[in-house]
Amino acid sequence: MTATVAILMGSKNDMSSLKGAFDTLKEFGIGFEAHVMSAHRTPDIAAEYAKNAEKNGTKIFICAAGMAAHLAGVIAAHTTLPVIAIPIASPPFNGFDALLAMVQMPPGIPVATVTAGSAGAKNAALLAVSILALSCPELNKKLKDFRADQTKKVIEDDRAIQSEI
Amino acid sequence: MTATVAILMGSKNDMSSLKGAFDTLKEFGIGFEAHVMSAHRTPDIAAEYAKNAEKNGTKIFICAAGMAAHLAGVIAAHTTLPVIAIPIASPPFNGFDALLAMVQMPPGIPVATVTAGSAGAKNAALLAVSILALSCPELNKKLKDFRADQTKKVIEDDRAIQSEI
Amino acid sequence: MTATVAILMGSKNDMSSLKGAFDTLKEFGIGFEAHVMSAHRTPDIAAEYAKNAEKNGTKIFICAAGMAAHLAGVIAAHTTLPVIAIPIASPPFNGFDALLAMVQMPPGIPVATVTAGSAGAKNAALLAVSILALSCPELNKKLKDFRADQTKKVIEDDRAIQSEI
Amino acid sequence: MTATVAILMGSKNDMSSLKGAFDTLKEFGIGFEAHVMSAHRTPDIAAEYAKNAEKNGTKIFICAAGMAAHLAGVIAAHTTLPVIAIPIASPPFNGFDALLAMVQMPPGIPVATVTAGSAGAKNAALLAVSILALSCPELNKKLKDFRADQTKKVIEDDRAIQSEI
Amino acid sequence: MTATVAILMGSKNDMSSLKGAFDTLKEFGIGFEAHVMSAHRTPDIAAEYAKNAEKNGTKIFICAAGMAAHLAGVIAAHTTLPVIAIPIASPPFNGFDALLAMVQMPPGIPVATVTAGSAGAKNAALLAVSILALSCPELNKKLKDFRADQTKKVIEDDRAIQSEI
Amino acid sequence: MTATVAILMGSKNDMSSLKGAFDTLKEFGIGFEAHVMSAHRTPDIAAEYAKNAEKNGTKIFICAAGMAAHLAGVIAAHTTLPVIAIPIASPPFNGFDALLAMVQMPPGIPVATVTAGSAGAKNAALLAVSILALSCPELNKKLKDFRADQTKKVIEDDRAIQSEI
Amino acid sequence: MTATVAILMGSKNDMSSLKGAFDTLKEFGIGFEAHVMSAHRTPDIAAEYAKNAEKNGTKIFICAAGMAAHLAGVIAAHTTLPVIAIPIASPPFNGFDALLAMVQMPPGIPVATVTAGSAGAKNAALLAVSILALSCPELNKKLKDFRADQTKKVIEDDRAIQSEI
Amino acid sequence: MTATVAILMGSKNDMSSLKGAFDTLKEFGIGFEAHVMSAHRTPDIAAEYAKNAEKNGTKIFICAAGMAAHLAGVIAAHTTLPVIAIPIASPPFNGFDALLAMVQMPPGIPVATVTAGSAGAKNAALLAVSILALSCPELNKKLKDFRADQTKKVIEDDRAIQSEI
Repeated sequence: MTATVAILMGSKNDMSSLKGAFDTLKEFGIGFEAHVMSAHRTPDIAAEYAKNAEKNGTKIFICAAGMAAHLAGVIAAHTTLPVIAIPIASPPFNGFDALLAMVQMPPGIPVATVTAGSAGAKNAALLAVSILALSCPELNKKLKDFRADQTKKVIEDDRAIQSEI
Repeated sequence: MTATVAILMGSKNDMSSLKGAFDTLKEFGIGFEAHVMSAHRTPDIAAEYAKNAEKNGTKIFICAAGMAAHLAGVIAAHTTLPVIAIPIASPPFNGFDALLAMVQMPPGIPVATVTAGSAGAKNAALLAVSILALSCPELNKKLKDFRADQTKKVIEDDRAIQSEI
Repeated sequence: MTATVAILMGSKNDMSSLKGAFDTLKEFGIGFEAHVMSAHRTPDIAAEYAKNAEKNGTKIFICAAGMAAHLAGVIAAHTTLPVIAIPIASPPFNGFDALLAMVQMPPGIPVATVTAGSAGAKNAALLAVSILALSCPELNKKLKDFRADQTKKVIEDDRAIQSEI
Repeated sequence: MTATVAILMGSKNDMSSLKGAFDTLKEFGIGFEAHVMSAHRTPDIAAEYAKNAEKNGTKIFICAAGMAAHLAGVIAAHTTLPVIAIPIASPPFNGFDALLAMVQMPPGIPVATVTAGSAGAKNAALLAVSILALSCPELNKKLKDFRADQTKKVIEDDRAIQSEI
Repeated sequence: MTATVAILMGSKNDMSSLKGAFDTLKEFGIGFEAHVMSAHRTPDIAAEYAKNAEKNGTKIFICAAGMAAHLAGVIAAHTTLPVIAIPIASPPFNGFDALLAMVQMPPGIPVATVTAGSAGAKNAALLAVSILALSCPELNKKLKDFRADQTKKVIEDDRAIQSEI
Repeated sequence: MTATVAILMGSKNDMSSLKGAFDTLKEFGIGFEAHVMSAHRTPDIAAEYAKNAEKNGTKIFICAAGMAAHLAGVIAAHTTLPVIAIPIASPPFNGFDALLAMVQMPPGIPVATVTAGSAGAKNAALLAVSILALSCPELNKKLKDFRADQTKKVIEDDRAIQSEI
Repeated sequence: MTATVAILMGSKNDMSSLKGAFDTLKEFGIGFEAHVMSAHRTPDIAAEYAKNAEKNGTKIFICAAGMAAHLAGVIAAHTTLPVIAIPIASPPFNGFDALLAMVQMPPGIPVATVTAGSAGAKNAALLAVSILALSCPELNKKLKDFRADQTKKVIEDDRAIQSEI
Repeated sequence: MTATVAILMGSKNDMSSLKGAFDTLKEFGIGFEAHVMSAHRTPDIAAEYAKNAEKNGTKIFICAAGMAAHLAGVIAAHTTLPVIAIPIASPPFNGFDALLAMVQMPPGIPVATVTAGSAGAKNAALLAVSILALSCPELNKKLKDFRADQTKKVIEDDRAIQSEI
């Protein structure tokens, strides 16, 4: 299974926040690899990785970072592949710094920012799925099924709470 | 030219903010259509449009809205196509409301948020290009050329300021 | 007892935040029903529910949601009944996202936002009571009694702390 | 025409922000009166007014104020009628102070906060209409017509921009 | 000992935050009384108390409240005595709401806001002391001694940490 | 007329923001002097001034500053007289920086912060008046008259707008 | 004159904000060069420049950028020379995005952030001067003279306003 | 070992946040001393210390403080040595107050602000190292080795997570 999606995180500590992304990509059968790679502590490795990703078969980047979260921007500077950014919350500014450092990319180099915190990991993976589904009918079908299941889950939750009111 | 990209805006006033998206898509020769469509004032039209987009050949949504900017979320709720969101700045909260109303989508329905304000329009279009380029080598080539030109432009700017220092 | 008030929440997790609303409506003898219903995961169910509510006897909506909290706006888009919104706090932005996503509705479709977090649940119910009391003298009387009791409670609290100073 | 709605503003300067409320109430044929009344500079007048409003036939309050916007809370403290609050934006904090001073009412005394700034004036009036429509079928009909017209306006806007793309 | 300082709190829960104020006033031998009194739930009691305070010998108010913290403003509206405000932090907005609701008083009715949270209680009391010391040489002397002791405490702390470096 | 109130400003540019303070103190016949004095550029002058103020007859400080507004804190560190702080708004953070740099004084050295921006200048002066009035019945009388006039002004404003509705 | 200080800006538009830095370095006779160089549009040029700076005689970097301001972080990642960051304010978030994207660097790669906006340019240059002065007695002398002149200027301003009070 | 770096903290409680600074300076063999010194409670000691530092051999200040964090600014006002500021997070505003009180220094007196919270302590020390390394080849070598080790650590972390994916 090739690494269609490259998941990069600025620190080993971001692993737990990314569980939702790993699980979702596995659920959809999308090959991925994950790396700790720092915009500031391993800038050359990050640049090289970004430059080579396309020819290595990567289609989409998912970058998770906290604080002055430059990882997604650095990757986007070195590739034309879509880059999805997850702002990771950390004290004391609770991800507000990471959100602005990610979403406010200057014109010319876009980054696709999703929900902050671990809630964003699942959405980053689903966004990747929706992009890949554009040229993969099977994945498109799976995504629609996922959505239908998700809808059912809410309906079940609705039923479940009735006894608690 | 079919409408590969559907650009939706919550209000006619958002037209000026979207110029960068129109220009960029035209520059890349990507077919698009643009509509005023409101999550709140025309919810059924928006839902119908989102549901039918895929079979009408739309690949990507770009949604621009201000204030409690729900348009991207409403569209994303009715399609599995990628949805890109541009938070439009309006008084008194200057787009900060729109940014949070767009980027903070709950897990399950992702939205790809880009730079707030008119600066985001160009990035939304470029993000769409990068997604479409995944399955279109010609577009991929154009995007790489665009990037090279953009780099040259910065180099020229650098030269230009030397006389002003 | 018909469901005069429809309480909708974006997620099952919001149940605990809503206790104050349930208790208050029960205390005032107002019929209500509560549902998990998502602006994004069950948009058609939410739209249908909103459209049918008035003819089913619903008078007022109370919508609680977190993050990019669109539920109240989506409901308001499909009904002319009063819609009360409770911004639910969740990490990492602590309800600030939900507040702005709810209160900043564009002109034309109003939403009545109350206090953020679980403190808002009681106020949402009391706001509903005050609306219903406009055409129900008995409820009006009960609300005035509630207020008088509440005032007494503060006076008792004042007495209670005197021994602690 | 009796004053069904009482519009109170903290300062004469708020008049321009309230135009949307005046126009909307007139459009719906709802009697209203408007007063400059300050939570801080005329507290007794405000308290008296709030206490007497119900027996004078007032059904709903709309309170607009800026800065440490206490007007809505002070009125709500003295009446059980529904109180709608419009946070008025003023320098240097652009209405963010007024929003929090209005929406964050403690449990027990609710206030219904709408969109900040002049955009909120129209919504405050429409919220009042939706409340009054609960016991007035004619108003209910007018509100539904208003909504239909509003929807048409967006459709026309959509048509209008097609020539500009 | 008459109640030179009146400490008012919006809720019994604010007692713990106010310890620093009680202790400091006791340390300086300043008579005070403390009351739970709500701008919204006991507005008439608060207004009466404020109106009568001066003739009862009160010189200064200290008002602590959270959320849409109107207590200080309501008291200031009914007295010309100096009113000191302590913004109490409460979830989800951590006192930021109370700070703005207190400090942003409109021109004409001033309120003296101190540090948010329990850290402000001590400062509120010390501010009261500094005001009372203007016409009480003995208190002035005590305040200067307090300051000297405080300075000594920092010098001792400096000495204490030397062994930990 | 001795300088009962010392008005200090961090920069000459703050003069225009302080007009409300000058006018109000003149209106009440309170002697004052005003100085440009910088916590950072003239720290020794500021410290000396603060240390000598009391014996020179100063009773109250009013300090206006923007950005990292330390002036009030520096003065408070060198005097036990009451220090009132006016956060001056300046780009790009519009006084939000000055507000937090002033109001969040650590326990032990209080500062009395009033409304941000030029709106605060009047309130700073009125707060000074209310403090001085504690030991000056004549000033107390004047302050009560001022309040009564202010109340009348609101009543007149209320009358004035009636023709505009 | 070699380029002891390298001033980098993310966009040609930042030139006007940097005037204070240019003027100050010229005033102190410190050689500098200035370049437009983008963390995102010319990442390789920026990285090369940063890597070679030390051997070319550069001692200090000053980096000015707006929005998701990564320039300072990218430079710091490729050099061990001190990097000073100026957050440039741009709509809609007025430099608040740039401030957080600059100051919140993760542990290991420091950046020295100064005042946001054009006010920061002068401070960035003065910080550079203070660093260079550590090993240059002549510069140290000049800096102390600059400070003395600055102090005099405040004293003159104080004199100047006396006629306006 | 002389105290090349002076680490000042506003309160003994800041000791734990500063561990990263102590450890880093020790690791680099840089002499330092640390003091509790308050801009407000020991202003004269702080001023004296700042004035004498240069002739005592100090080259760089690191100042850590919370709330209205004036310590760095006070020190910078009395010395021309470089001053590095660490905003310490404390409830209820989580260091956001300290960040703005430190970074927003007015033009003329610069302060070099680093990452907020304990994460900033390490960066403050590394920034000091980078400044001292300008005139110390040995330290420069050590800093480059530190960076190389840091890069290796990220590479090892990357390897370590591979088994967890």
